[in-house]
Amino acid sequence: MLIDNQEKTDLLKLFCEVRRETEDFTRLLKIEDYIPQPVIFASPAKWHLAHTTWFFENFILKTFYSGYKEFDEDFAFLFNSYYKQAGKMLFRADRGNMTRPSVDEVYAYRAYVDRHIEELLKESFLPDLEELIVLGLNHEQQHQELLKTDVKYLLGHNPIFPSILEDNLVQSNGELPSWKSINEGVYEIGYAQNVESNSDFCFDNEQGRHKVYIHDFEIRNELVTNAEYIEFMEDGGYERPELWLDEGWTWCEENSIKSPLYWHKKKDSWWHFTFSGFCQLPLNEILCHVSYYEAEAFARWKGYRLPTEFEWEVAADSISWGKRWEWTNSAYLPYPKYKIAEGAIGEYNGKFMINQMTLRGASCATSKNHSRKTYRNFFHPHYQWQFSGIRLVK
Amino acid sequence: MLIDNQEKTDLLKLFCEVRRETEDFTRLLKIEDYIPQPVIFASPAKWHLAHTTWFFENFILKTFYSGYKEFDEDFAFLFNSYYKQAGKMLFRADRGNMTRPSVDEVYAYRAYVDRHIEELLKESFLPDLEELIVLGLNHEQQHQELLKTDVKYLLGHNPIFPSILEDNLVQSNGELPSWKSINEGVYEIGYAQNVESNSDFCFDNEQGRHKVYIHDFEIRNELVTNAEYIEFMEDGGYERPELWLDEGWTWCEENSIKSPLYWHKKKDSWWHFTFSGFCQLPLNEILCHVSYYEAEAFARWKGYRLPTEFEWEVAADSISWGKRWEWTNSAYLPYPKYKIAEGAIGEYNGKFMINQMTLRGASCATSKNHSRKTYRNFFHPHYQWQFSGIRLVK
Amino acid sequence: MLIDNQEKTDLLKLFCEVRRETEDFTRLLKIEDYIPQPVIFASPAKWHLAHTTWFFENFILKTFYSGYKEFDEDFAFLFNSYYKQAGKMLFRADRGNMTRPSVDEVYAYRAYVDRHIEELLKESFLPDLEELIVLGLNHEQQHQELLKTDVKYLLGHNPIFPSILEDNLVQSNGELPSWKSINEGVYEIGYAQNVESNSDFCFDNEQGRHKVYIHDFEIRNELVTNAEYIEFMEDGGYERPELWLDEGWTWCEENSIKSPLYWHKKKDSWWHFTFSGFCQLPLNEILCHVSYYEAEAFARWKGYRLPTEFEWEVAADSISWGKRWEWTNSAYLPYPKYKIAEGAIGEYNGKFMINQMTLRGASCATSKNHSRKTYRNFFHPHYQWQFSGIRLVK
Amino acid sequence: MLIDNQEKTDLLKLFCEVRRETEDFTRLLKIEDYIPQPVIFASPAKWHLAHTTWFFENFILKTFYSGYKEFDEDFAFLFNSYYKQAGKMLFRADRGNMTRPSVDEVYAYRAYVDRHIEELLKESFLPDLEELIVLGLNHEQQHQELLKTDVKYLLGHNPIFPSILEDNLVQSNGELPSWKSINEGVYEIGYAQNVESNSDFCFDNEQGRHKVYIHDFEIRNELVTNAEYIEFMEDGGYERPELWLDEGWTWCEENSIKSPLYWHKKKDSWWHFTFSGFCQLPLNEILCHVSYYEAEAFARWKGYRLPTEFEWEVAADSISWGKRWEWTNSAYLPYPKYKIAEGAIGEYNGKFMINQMTLRGASCATSKNHSRKTYRNFFHPHYQWQFSGIRLVK
Repeated sequence: MLIDNQEKTDLLKLFCEVRRETEDFTRLLKIEDYIPQPVIFASPAKWHLAHTTWFFENFILKTFYSGYKEFDEDFAFLFNSYYKQAGKMLFRADRGNMTRPSVDEVYAYRAYVDRHIEELLKESFLPDLEELIVLGLNHEQQHQELLKTDVKYLLGHNPIFPSILEDNLVQSNGELPSWKSINEGVYEIGYAQNVESNSDFCFDNEQGRHKVYIHDFEIRNELVTNAEYIEFMEDGGYERPELWLDEGWTWCEENSIKSPLYWHKKKDSWWHFTFSGFCQLPLNEILCHVSYYEAEAFARWKGYRLPTEFEWEVAADSISWGKRWEWTNSAYLPYPKYKIAEGAIGEYNGKFMINQMTLRGASCATSKNHSRKTYRNFFHPHYQWQFSGIRLVK
Repeated sequence: MLIDNQEKTDLLKLFCEVRRETEDFTRLLKIEDYIPQPVIFASPAKWHLAHTTWFFENFILKTFYSGYKEFDEDFAFLFNSYYKQAGKMLFRADRGNMTRPSVDEVYAYRAYVDRHIEELLKESFLPDLEELIVLGLNHEQQHQELLKTDVKYLLGHNPIFPSILEDNLVQSNGELPSWKSINEGVYEIGYAQNVESNSDFCFDNEQGRHKVYIHDFEIRNELVTNAEYIEFMEDGGYERPELWLDEGWTWCEENSIKSPLYWHKKKDSWWHFTFSGFCQLPLNEILCHVSYYEAEAFARWKGYRLPTEFEWEVAADSISWGKRWEWTNSAYLPYPKYKIAEGAIGEYNGKFMINQMTLRGASCATSKNHSRKTYRNFFHPHYQWQFSGIRLVK
Repeated sequence: MLIDNQEKTDLLKLFCEVRRETEDFTRLLKIEDYIPQPVIFASPAKWHLAHTTWFFENFILKTFYSGYKEFDEDFAFLFNSYYKQAGKMLFRADRGNMTRPSVDEVYAYRAYVDRHIEELLKESFLPDLEELIVLGLNHEQQHQELLKTDVKYLLGHNPIFPSILEDNLVQSNGELPSWKSINEGVYEIGYAQNVESNSDFCFDNEQGRHKVYIHDFEIRNELVTNAEYIEFMEDGGYERPELWLDEGWTWCEENSIKSPLYWHKKKDSWWHFTFSGFCQLPLNEILCHVSYYEAEAFARWKGYRLPTEFEWEVAADSISWGKRWEWTNSAYLPYPKYKIAEGAIGEYNGKFMINQMTLRGASCATSKNHSRKTYRNFFHPHYQWQFSGIRLVK
Repeated sequence: MLIDNQEKTDLLKLFCEVRRETEDFTRLLKIEDYIPQPVIFASPAKWHLAHTTWFFENFILKTFYSGYKEFDEDFAFLFNSYYKQAGKMLFRADRGNMTRPSVDEVYAYRAYVDRHIEELLKESFLPDLEELIVLGLNHEQQHQELLKTDVKYLLGHNPIFPSILEDNLVQSNGELPSWKSINEGVYEIGYAQNVESNSDFCFDNEQGRHKVYIHDFEIRNELVTNAEYIEFMEDGGYERPELWLDEGWTWCEENSIKSPLYWHKKKDSWWHFTFSGFCQLPLNEILCHVSYYEAEAFARWKGYRLPTEFEWEVAADSISWGKRWEWTNSAYLPYPKYKIAEGAIGEYNGKFMINQMTLRGASCATSKNHSRKTYRNFFHPHYQWQFSGIRLVK
């Protein structure tokens, strides 16, 4: 059952494309920008470049490329993220202090691993290798998104607000919000190969298609805009504890949260940081950079609620989505038939299923082929640094 | 629609019983034991005595007892727990430093409020008052349980392990574990007055009866015993990261967790602290004082999993339960039709619906009438100080 | 060289007096007040009672009383403060959670140890035992002072400000401040038995009489009053970083320090907490409860400075002192000929000679026989909870 | 009283030299190495380059250069270190996250300010300007030393131990230690222009020459070597609390300190990190990278003590020094006649005179003209990252 030639050609092409996309973004940076880790949940750009490469070297080349010689034996330690079964790793908070290997050396590492993967893909091989290559590419695409949000965090906390590219804002269409009704009943949830036209890959956490019972609900077609959120703020949204979850209120108080991330008030009007620098906040743009706590408080204030991830998935074909991640009111937990893979790869998703909330949809930073209705993104409820917005349900 | 005489008599009787039960336990303590708050999530016994009384004074007497004179106007500040809409409150971490009012004064406060409630219940009144009294009593019963677990925490961290009463251990019946099968289908979840024979009260978080779809599963009739857990420990349970959620592993490392709470190894055998002091661990006793992290790791090691709270509720009539709280694999989140009450009372449950896991069942410290299959208990996944054990599902 | 009878009688009398003085104060408390440790640098009253007793049991009875049977073998662990060479000890922050042994048991412990010491003092003995008894009594007197300041801290942080006794305020005499001149030259510093009339005991840190060179200076006879300090506050004392040591300014900012400890502004006038409860601040009273940082900033604002501990000692016979501890501008460091005693007793003073500032004088809480001009008190520069005031030098 | 031409030429030459010396070191680094701040007490290389330049721009060009136009108006905020009277400043812990301005821009800033200073020095001017230039240069030389120790800290915590230059070790001469005796008496302490041949500059904290009384002492001519320190370690130095100050012992325990900084044990022999990378520890080299706590414990173990800073200054002409900073047993406090300058410059030294210990001598990283016997260096007692060693006294 060897992989046929057409499939090999396609895979090689995909490999080259995805790897190049990562560098297309990092080439916008100065060497200085590759280094810091401004906060423990973010990682340096250099680290993202190296870690995604380590994934291919560690899980593929070391196993499948006979006689493979590691680029540098220290890298296994330096660029492992959290795979405990793959050996020891650098303490996470130290990522920003590793000035060496240099940026040039990391690009050389990428080129070295790419060359070997390309050679490997020219040989005959079985589906298990293809599967790992595809996983490695999807892994890299997830890091492309984190890379962008991490760089935005770094530059957005620099008092001189550097600009690195022309940022495309996401305008709402300006129409009045409309609501879609979904009927009560039993629905199927989770990835199913035949119904998902645009992707024949999914992560383990989407698998195990199963039934859920959904009650009648109405879901808003349009995401919440900046203008709507400003109404909430002007109505004392951040000063009224009764609107907030208890931990959300504490989070606001302890961190002096008074607005979405990157927003600054300047002489009575709101400005925000984008990749194009510091600019006035477009009121009709879709809101983003809010935490789950803010999303939940906003919905409560508005008299509505957030959808569960199951409601969202059932409604996905009826609503507009794909420009901003959307907080759901579901905790990130395993599906009934969830199976953890053997070995270090099994640490990919399963071990994070606690204290996080699921997000559905996709954002401007998401790879196109990750934009599928069964994709389960997840973050702790206090994080604002993703492009996360609000969908309402009643 | 005034409350009739029989109902009034019953309510008064219930009120006296519940209030006395609290003091039956606290009278076992020395004055010294009423004071400290050894850890922020626990509260002093004196505080529990006063806070449950404050609930009646603040939410009932101030509203319904015409001309009521507060026992002491400082108490509104000192003994409010977390009701932001009921005014300012003492910083939580300071509860253990309030040596005054003295224990005697707090008992006098209880007697004063009790006398006024009793007078009130002799008058004519409407169901809204009855409802609040019943809520206040259920509130007090929840605090009776916390009181016991908090006192156990205090004494169990004293190196001389004081004994205060004869503790009744919960023996497993010694039979081999048996499994019950539950069939796939749509089930109803949540409190329904007519089907719950032993209680006509429920908390707001149990309401909103609704449908869920359950897949086939088998659930073990017996809870996990100490002996079974020791097998896990002896098989390296606390040294194998692949068995743990990532945050669970970190929690073990940062807190040097190597066993359930109150367990100590003494010359090759396990001992534990109970209300009767320090004694050898009975191997056939039902395990308790484990965190969600430990419960989840144990289940994974055993090749099984924890039930969801919905599976648990559906299976409840088929299995033995009621002696130990059981961690479920469900996050504590609102039911689809959940409504938050108006005013400060609305802060009772709803604002805690984040980052906590649901427990089902009941423990040796639970009031009998809280022992119902729809009751939703909830704690953060790292807490061990409740009487929390493990139920397995496959 | 046995101790003669008169000396024995005197020693026994002194022993009984000092031990009784401790209890004279603690008998003012309710049981509840004996328990908490509101902050890590303070200790519970019960702990002080027991620890001072442990000192006699551990360093004297166990060595000198043949066949002595410990009152309770756990107490060596529970009530050792910081003598590492005397064995393991309870973690300091846990002192407030030890509700057992109860207060009654601790009084019984005191009585038991007292009886044994008294028996011992009726026998024949050598000066080494007398020396340790005297050290134990001076140790107890130091704890009497800490006991008072720790109880004041506990009650002064209770929002209802309990009163336990009639507090005697320390009035300044209302006269204009006068200055004494001291001439440049070589002076002798440190304890000398013959020149100290009121005490034939001193601590090891006062010993090693030696020469210092002092330059001309003038020292103010009167300590700073509350009224003077309010001037400083009203002149923006707490808002002007240029008046402060860098760590002092940070300390103010991080702890929101805006006044001396226990001061509260109530409708434009200043109130403070005393052992007699909450009362209006007497403007002519001598200021106390300021940190070194505040003392230093005040002096700078006033255009003066604090004395060194050597200047203070040289001037001591020319100025009024004894009612409030006075911060000096000297770090607490060993005298040139300082010798640390062998064994656990050597840990008494020497190991604290870093990061602390010396205070000279005495306060209302100090034992009379500790009120000598060579006595070196010492605390970290941010502590306000001692009765510490300000002396000026120019 | 204008500065004459020869003096102007000399000053200009000195200015160019000192400024170039800074860059001679930083040019050894890769761009990546300029960025991180691995620990709050260290600063990024880029920051040192910019801050020393800011000093000239802010305190000199803005005042003396008529019509001066700031290079970039954001830099006043970004590169102020701690001068509160010079305006707001970046939060210290954020220095490592400022990737922009880039390294190139900072070099351009240096060139811009240098050009303006050079122009200024070609004009006629008064001694006050010269004084500030000299202060700015001495300030820059202090930062040259910090720059080296901060870079060493950064690279020495990188697991791959990068090498940037040929490091010159400081060998002891291998002879047996010899002791010099100093006689009791009154000595003069502090900077005096005529007696200091190699420098006509000193910092404010050295000024106010005054008398001290010194008792007889003997001081060792040679500093302690690595071999001697290893003896201490092998004798259980880090496991015996009786050798340590209490805070020193806690510091060891909390930070798992088991050796000087940069030492690592590898198969029974000691290695350390230097600017030339990771190499075996030369046993006869002079010990460095110890904290005051370690220095004090070592001296106690050896049966000696550390010198006071006054003893050191009196003995300085009789002993070999200049290769390693030496911890003294004196707290960093003002001399009797110490005067703080007016304005922001007054914040240079005075506000740090608390909780720090004085070091005397000089190290391999010290500018030659800072190597004078009255120079007072100072650090907190737990810092190891300076080139700090041990001198013994008996």
